[in-house]
Amino acid sequence: MTSNFKTERTRLRRAHERGHYDEKTVYSILDAMPVCNIAFTDSFGTPAIIPTIQWREGNHVYWHASSAARSLKAMKGAQIALSVTMLDGFVMARSAMHHSVNFRSVVIYGEAYQVDNNLKEEKLRNMIEALYPGRWDKLRPINAIELKQTTVFGMEINEASAKIRTGGVNDDEEDMNWPVWAGVVPVAMSIGDLEADPHLPASTPVGEDVTSIKIG
Amino acid sequence: MTSNFKTERTRLRRAHERGHYDEKTVYSILDAMPVCNIAFTDSFGTPAIIPTIQWREGNHVYWHASSAARSLKAMKGAQIALSVTMLDGFVMARSAMHHSVNFRSVVIYGEAYQVDNNLKEEKLRNMIEALYPGRWDKLRPINAIELKQTTVFGMEINEASAKIRTGGVNDDEEDMNWPVWAGVVPVAMSIGDLEADPHLPASTPVGEDVTSIKIG
Repeated sequence: MTSNFKTERTRLRRAHERGHYDEKTVYSILDAMPVCNIAFTDSFGTPAIIPTIQWREGNHVYWHASSAARSLKAMKGAQIALSVTMLDGFVMARSAMHHSVNFRSVVIYGEAYQVDNNLKEEKLRNMIEALYPGRWDKLRPINAIELKQTTVFGMEINEASAKIRTGGVNDDEEDMNWPVWAGVVPVAMSIGDLEADPHLPASTPVGEDVTSIKIG
Repeated sequence: MTSNFKTERTRLRRAHERGHYDEKTVYSILDAMPVCNIAFTDSFGTPAIIPTIQWREGNHVYWHASSAARSLKAMKGAQIALSVTMLDGFVMARSAMHHSVNFRSVVIYGEAYQVDNNLKEEKLRNMIEALYPGRWDKLRPINAIELKQTTVFGMEINEASAKIRTGGVNDDEEDMNWPVWAGVVPVAMSIGDLEADPHLPASTPVGEDVTSIKIG
């Protein structure tokens, strides 16, 4: 059975043709972009937001922070909302009103939970492997102090919506001859030339954990 | 006098060497990336998050939406937090612990206000000009119905923090000879080839409003 993440809280009221609630769409956006923003209520009782790195395992999404981080204390067991957003292009129409952007975004609502200490190393391994497949076993092994300094949080994905806009301009019929350039200016993220650490021996091989990184 | 946006709510507790509270740094990040995420408390009383496009005028940041949007009703006069985040690279260390990302981010806290109707057209003009300098006067003029359908919100920037990580890997001294590739994999946003609207006459000039778009 395929999940449907549509709820009263995630249902798009406007531009509903852009809304998607299926696993495949929601997961593909989460997997394309590790940067997320998390909204929570801080210790001042007001809305707060924090950018961090997320990774997904099945129908859970995870993030980590220093065990001393204020944000984690405020999130533990609390309702939060997590957003992943990618800009794919500027849509330039003949009227201001029809300007838009092409984008892919996901918002997930749910309760944040702290991952048990005995699962922490496995989760951190999964984070490294999600970003850089094959890298964990090549690294200097993690130690007990490092594990203690790090806390992993998660949330189940069962209330979510994806929003996607693709395609060209949708000008009003009567504006089609207005004399201004109209179209899409694509935007994309790309990986640049590797910058090896200056202390690295020149003979060090660059593995697939580095060359296979994808973004966007 | 230069503003300092540091408050008890925006002061970085950890990695404080990465924190910046000055106008120049905060504004430069807001101006480099129109995509933002806004955290607010929704009508269900729980944290919500919405991605949108922001633009800055002096010490105010603005965004807009359909006048019917649920999110605007919940934001009006309420405390919100707005985040702009750019990923600049993957920092790949010799231990899992020292993996990081290079990034630039800003978080602003404050009260969201609705812009007066008689200022709306000016604000929408400023949005178009912020993204596409010189474009507004080329467009089919905005009309009363379109103005009515659109609502502009703003917040003053007086409580904010920027967080920036740049540079290379910071491995532990004793790990420097560990035999794994280490370094930075840069990430950047770029503008692709223009995709002209299929109905556009081939003779239509491409102005600086299109060619001068910058991102990231």
